[in-house]
Amino acid sequence: MASPEIEALTQALARLPGLGPRSARRAVLHLLKKREAALGPLRAALEAVDERLETCATCGNVDTANPCAICADPRRDQRSLCVVEEVADLWALERSRLFPGRFHVLGGRLSALEGIRPEDLAIDALVTRIEAGGIDEVVLAMNATLEGQTTAHYLADRIERFPVRVTQLAHGLPVGGELDYLDEGTLAQALRARRPV
Amino acid sequence: MASPEIEALTQALARLPGLGPRSARRAVLHLLKKREAALGPLRAALEAVDERLETCATCGNVDTANPCAICADPRRDQRSLCVVEEVADLWALERSRLFPGRFHVLGGRLSALEGIRPEDLAIDALVTRIEAGGIDEVVLAMNATLEGQTTAHYLADRIERFPVRVTQLAHGLPVGGELDYLDEGTLAQALRARRPV
Ligand SMILES: [Zn+2]
Ligand SMILES: [Zn+2]
Repeated sequence: MASPEIEALTQALARLPGLGPRSARRAVLHLLKKREAALGPLRAALEAVDERLETCATCGNVDTANPCAICADPRRDQRSLCVVEEVADLWALERSRLFPGRFHVLGGRLSALEGIRPEDLAIDALVTRIEAGGIDEVVLAMNATLEGQTTAHYLADRIERFPVRVTQLAHGLPVGGELDYLDEGTLAQALRARRPV
Repeated sequence: MASPEIEALTQALARLPGLGPRSARRAVLHLLKKREAALGPLRAALEAVDERLETCATCGNVDTANPCAICADPRRDQRSLCVVEEVADLWALERSRLFPGRFHVLGGRLSALEGIRPEDLAIDALVTRIEAGGIDEVVLAMNATLEGQTTAHYLADRIERFPVRVTQLAHGLPVGGELDYLDEGTLAQALRARRPV
């Protein structure tokens, strides 16, 4: 039997999405064989993330600064706010460099199945941001899933009373598609063709 | 774009076997969302492995002690030595609790394709251990792959001159099968039916 340290590392890795117990064990073996080339860098990277990164209190992005670099950047269009489910969706949009405004990360989507309710997401914070004024357009960039669209409609209802244009990504997105998995072209097209909800 | 810290962590994870860039990104997102439940434990586990584990100078096992717990255990049969390719194979055999002796980890197998030669593996150290005496049987527990079997034959030739019984795992192993992927029953059968080389 491997040592408790190795078992603990195997279990911690096995809990990552995309890695099961078997591949976690392989990964641990790899790390042990390549201590300087693999274990060292992974450890350092984890420590850096754990020590330096925090969640932006304004938008929910994860960055070394709070407010994050996007929120603090005066060149970003402050009148345009893009609402996403997850930080990964924000990253996907940032990689495409297509959206000039700022973001708001909900931290998930409404889900009756998983019992995720409006109060479990950063929806009140979104309403507060919009209420504070200065925003002309809110782009709802939810995933093109049933739950994503339910969330978008719920948000549209909540935002309705404010003098902002509410749009959502054009439905050229593949059905069931998740933002983070889309190529840049599809994402660009969907963003260009965004329409009022 | 995500911060350099996140990019570095994504890249370090993407280099693990079984994780590509996409799943590494998912894993990082998961770690960022579950900082206390996932990132903290993974970081602690990596630190513990990095700080506490060393390679046993005798057998090549990885443990908190050197010599390792297996080498230091007086109840293990010192006359029986099981040679494996990787530490993971040692773990697989230890999980099965079938082998009462000690181990010798080669650190790989001979491979013309990958340019892995005898001097790249812990073969001289194996010969030295056998030469020192006190060993009656050497079990060659290589993978049932072409390279594993080539390695076993090479080792059998090198060990021939010593007064030890050289056996190998019975070939009930599935062709191309790797030790670490076998169920315990198959492993038990193969070990019970081991035969002289
Ligand atoms: Zn921010
Ligand atoms: Zn040892």
